[in-house]
Amino acid sequence: MTEPVTLALTAGEPAGIGPELCLQLAAEARVEGIVLVASKTLLAERAQQLGLSVALRDWQPGQPATRAAGELSVWSVDGCVGTQPGVLDRANSAYVLDTLRLATQGCLDGTFDGMVTAPVHKGVINEAGIPFSGHTEFLQEQCGVERVVMMLATDDLRVALVTTHLPLKDVAAAITPARLTQVARILDADLKTFFGIAQPRILVAGLNPHAGEGGHLGREEIDTIEPTLAQLRQQGLTLTGPLPADTLFTPHWLDQADAVLAMYHDQGLPVLKFQGFGRAVNITLGLPIVRTSVDHGTALDLAGTGRADAGSLNTALRVGARMARCRNAANQGTHP
Amino acid sequence: MTEPVTLALTAGEPAGIGPELCLQLAAEARVEGIVLVASKTLLAERAQQLGLSVALRDWQPGQPATRAAGELSVWSVDGCVGTQPGVLDRANSAYVLDTLRLATQGCLDGTFDGMVTAPVHKGVINEAGIPFSGHTEFLQEQCGVERVVMMLATDDLRVALVTTHLPLKDVAAAITPARLTQVARILDADLKTFFGIAQPRILVAGLNPHAGEGGHLGREEIDTIEPTLAQLRQQGLTLTGPLPADTLFTPHWLDQADAVLAMYHDQGLPVLKFQGFGRAVNITLGLPIVRTSVDHGTALDLAGTGRADAGSLNTALRVGARMARCRNAANQGTHP
Repeated sequence: MTEPVTLALTAGEPAGIGPELCLQLAAEARVEGIVLVASKTLLAERAQQLGLSVALRDWQPGQPATRAAGELSVWSVDGCVGTQPGVLDRANSAYVLDTLRLATQGCLDGTFDGMVTAPVHKGVINEAGIPFSGHTEFLQEQCGVERVVMMLATDDLRVALVTTHLPLKDVAAAITPARLTQVARILDADLKTFFGIAQPRILVAGLNPHAGEGGHLGREEIDTIEPTLAQLRQQGLTLTGPLPADTLFTPHWLDQADAVLAMYHDQGLPVLKFQGFGRAVNITLGLPIVRTSVDHGTALDLAGTGRADAGSLNTALRVGARMARCRNAANQGTHP
Repeated sequence: MTEPVTLALTAGEPAGIGPELCLQLAAEARVEGIVLVASKTLLAERAQQLGLSVALRDWQPGQPATRAAGELSVWSVDGCVGTQPGVLDRANSAYVLDTLRLATQGCLDGTFDGMVTAPVHKGVINEAGIPFSGHTEFLQEQCGVERVVMMLATDDLRVALVTTHLPLKDVAAAITPARLTQVARILDADLKTFFGIAQPRILVAGLNPHAGEGGHLGREEIDTIEPTLAQLRQQGLTLTGPLPADTLFTPHWLDQADAVLAMYHDQGLPVLKFQGFGRAVNITLGLPIVRTSVDHGTALDLAGTGRADAGSLNTALRVGARMARCRNAANQGTHP
């Protein structure tokens, strides 16, 4: 059951901190197999710029990935033009998406047990004329699923979101019975599959302050959330709420729950990032594959300095590996 | 400068935990003078029910308040009917508001240095036919001010709100230049007056996720918040933002700030209460008087058990005393 898994790791935007965070992994021997999906030339250049001695081993599907210190396996992707750290170049946008495509396909066909993504830069991809609203949406399309769920997690707390990157004024209208049902079911199912929780206990936040205070501060809890939760409970989900968001994140509730379902981005993520800063991982649920990500951006100002902190990337790899092992064990009818 | 101040303490809803939290204060000698503004009969009954030996000393304006262990000063208010713990009686609603009125007037006329409030029950007051939407609005009206600001604080974090008890769907439209200007000015002025901070450094959250991400996730930052902050900076305020709420609450930003200004209730308070649960205090800024409050409700289910935790009340008294001392020193041209 401690069989190592093999994870694809995309290095993200060439001008950002992604490539050097990936190179930092060579500092120590690793339990899991990691295959960098990136331009080998780019990685070699960045290693040289930073004075890092890393042997980049060419990798092909079917081979084992090296786990030795000082070495990294690379599935090289063409199309990356020479890049200065910190200087975006739209000529690299197609290459960046190629790395994502290759990693996703590798997860879908069983080459990899899961994928971990370093940050990309949405702006420069769009400037290159390629419509792109984020990793999550891209993977959703590649995998052909109707709904995915964004969950951020630390070792102590998991927060999933019903809505994600919406203007605040549009949030209330987006909380529909259909969306809430889909999101709650995905969260419940994936906590079972990827986290090995037999009967996930989920705390659901209300939409309004004080969860609407009996209708005095908004009616969405009464009209939409409560009836939907009641129906989901009849289908076997263990849901508590809707709870006021400012009392939900206290030990009384959190100690008896496996995850929090927040209605929107800034209701759930400030607490998560306050609690787990630098150790949070972004997980996409609802996909047929394992995908985790760092919780930070490209940090163009830090790129090339060697001072970027790989804490979140290490967490993303650790969590991704654990999820993959849990899913593999479930598929084999065993437990991790 | 360590001259004790005298605080009025209203005991709140007779059926809730307010009266017994007040009685718990007699367990130790106190630095500050505290005058309970409540029915002496109610307090005596509750003490007897809980087996607490407390000498309730009648108090009149002009007298010093006792600070001895085993004793409490009481400015008795008539009109409280006999009450079972946990059982609301609308016949007490007028009495509850009388205690608030008396304490507020005592602050305004200099009898008290400030007031601290135990929780009331909005529902039962309204059922009695008295329109009442909360302590804050009641005090605002009593003091005749146009705008007040709700701020919650722990020893390490202060979070003020631009909007408070609004349905989420109405929040975006409520973030106007006029409101944001008033709230930021009150926050800045009161951090000076009541907290002795010469040049308050305030972190301002955006309204939308990622603070709108350059207009991709909402335009309120560009159209309203940024221009308003620019104007306020020209008037001398030290404001940073608008910042994404999920990165604002991290040491990088918090370590160099005196307070956070959140746009709405569930953007700011979940973190505050997660960080400081049981030690948070609710402060009303913008009043001509000092007013602090516990951060919890009447807890009808706990009332009469003696198990209610006075942590938040003790914090509210400590913070209220410190604010009063700071304001008094400022009025005298000295520093606390």
